[in-house]
Amino acid sequence: MEKNQKIVLASRPTTWVEESNFRLEQSDIPVPGANQVLVRNRWLSLDPYMRGRMSDAKSYAAPVQIGAVMVGGTAGEVIKSNHPEFTAGDTVVGALGWQTWGVADGSTLRKVDARAIPLSAYLGPVGMPGVTAWVGLLDICAPRAGETLVVTAASGAVGSVVGQLAQIHGARAVGIAGGPDKCRYVMDELGFDACIDYKAGNLHGDLRQATPNGIDCLFENVGGEIFDTLLGRMNPFSRVALCGLISQYNGESCPLNNIRSVLVNRIRMQGFIVTDDLSRWPPALKELGGHIIAGRIKYRESVAEGLAAAPAALISLLKGGNFGKQLVKLG
Amino acid sequence: MEKNQKIVLASRPTTWVEESNFRLEQSDIPVPGANQVLVRNRWLSLDPYMRGRMSDAKSYAAPVQIGAVMVGGTAGEVIKSNHPEFTAGDTVVGALGWQTWGVADGSTLRKVDARAIPLSAYLGPVGMPGVTAWVGLLDICAPRAGETLVVTAASGAVGSVVGQLAQIHGARAVGIAGGPDKCRYVMDELGFDACIDYKAGNLHGDLRQATPNGIDCLFENVGGEIFDTLLGRMNPFSRVALCGLISQYNGESCPLNNIRSVLVNRIRMQGFIVTDDLSRWPPALKELGGHIIAGRIKYRESVAEGLAAAPAALISLLKGGNFGKQLVKLG
Repeated sequence: MEKNQKIVLASRPTTWVEESNFRLEQSDIPVPGANQVLVRNRWLSLDPYMRGRMSDAKSYAAPVQIGAVMVGGTAGEVIKSNHPEFTAGDTVVGALGWQTWGVADGSTLRKVDARAIPLSAYLGPVGMPGVTAWVGLLDICAPRAGETLVVTAASGAVGSVVGQLAQIHGARAVGIAGGPDKCRYVMDELGFDACIDYKAGNLHGDLRQATPNGIDCLFENVGGEIFDTLLGRMNPFSRVALCGLISQYNGESCPLNNIRSVLVNRIRMQGFIVTDDLSRWPPALKELGGHIIAGRIKYRESVAEGLAAAPAALISLLKGGNFGKQLVKLG
Repeated sequence: MEKNQKIVLASRPTTWVEESNFRLEQSDIPVPGANQVLVRNRWLSLDPYMRGRMSDAKSYAAPVQIGAVMVGGTAGEVIKSNHPEFTAGDTVVGALGWQTWGVADGSTLRKVDARAIPLSAYLGPVGMPGVTAWVGLLDICAPRAGETLVVTAASGAVGSVVGQLAQIHGARAVGIAGGPDKCRYVMDELGFDACIDYKAGNLHGDLRQATPNGIDCLFENVGGEIFDTLLGRMNPFSRVALCGLISQYNGESCPLNNIRSVLVNRIRMQGFIVTDDLSRWPPALKELGGHIIAGRIKYRESVAEGLAAAPAALISLLKGGNFGKQLVKLG
């Protein structure tokens, strides 16, 4: 009889995540209760926020408990439904975690059309990362036509959408990415106006060249020295959407020296979490879906095969080893 | 024949300001041209922003040129007017700089009523510092009733108004000041709900005690380690009005370690300069004037006697040696 494969949190990392922080277990396939839906997960999304949930430091969300299934966004197929809005065969997106099967109340699932757009994309550009890009760009950065936007981790699931969306809204998009391959992809495939390889060792000079008119909007995913350098290049009355600080998730001290720029340039800096205002999701998903179908927003996926590959894939993601949206194919 | 006494910038400081950076000179009393007004300055305002104007580092305003009269807000008496809106004997506020006499186009002067409110107060709570407090508090911090506001440099010209205004608008006001005398004044005279002496050496503990419900609004004038500590105490969806960084104006490196709090707590941080939106001045001055006349906002002045005392008084101000609004009485 088939079992549910699941990965639980075995221990909390103190600095970098290690595979020993996870444990693969199996259990019976759960039975859906009233209003619940049984889903066979096909795709698991891996995202930087997961590092925060592995820690018990105070944050915006509760940590995963030791021994509990790791949290995560999933896309899959309804096998059995006790909820009136779902029937077997529906494709749904939810947050069923690192496991091959899951049950959830129907109200926490979103039915998606996997014919017009591939199912996996609902975990990327038309899912949480896409909405994150949309909210941070349009609600916080609010670029005006002709302004310059810079986004860090530009080839990633969020950054790639930020730059393309900024261009659609009339701004000039400059990416920061690690290595020539990612930069070439950001320029040639995604069509950014410029991309800076921060590993090339000439960030200050390259940035000056790529942003001759300074920076009006910064969509920050990384933090640390790069963030500091970018702050020093901001224009008067510019905006920073602070979305992530992935370079600082493992205990590194990354002090910010350029806070003076926030004062002198009257910068508005806003930290945000995509789930803060759920009313923004429907308009975001509608716009993003249209751009994906029309080919105006392109995306790339890194796929790890099988649930057992998830820990190594997350570790790689946290080190910038992924290329595009990191997924795990659950079969 | 009487001469104009003036202080010019003799050299640029590289770290702390020294008296040798200034030079006292005299010149003929200027003659007003078309639309100009000749003013005998009675009061000179000393303010932290002056440190920035002495430097030629890129900032929001042009630096004072070597040999030019130091910039500064002034209050005085009209002696001769070629402008239709002013007549001899009017009391006016302007930016005539560090000198006993000045001419300015009438459009740059503001006529004030020195009977209801003392003339010097137009350089303090009903002048630039008061409007700074009003804009940063109401437009950026926007405290809701019952929320906790913290303001640094709480006994100063800006900070003292911030806390009292916050209370008028229903918030709980907590000040940070240096030394027991200033803290006692902030509590007993200004009526703040709490005041923390950062020099007492127990900032973390004292802060926890003074802000049992965390911080919803931070009005930041100082920067450095205190700012960092306060950031770590901010609540979800809190606001920071970044008004000044006086601890960092002399070349000190004051890295900010707690930027993670901006992300995790979705903090909105906004740098601002009071002259950015001049349309805010009339409503601010109207409200502040009413509070001063009614005794709802109290203030305190540090007065240096005579123009020659201005350099030492500014140096003291930059080191936190003033107590309340720092003025120079020009006689």
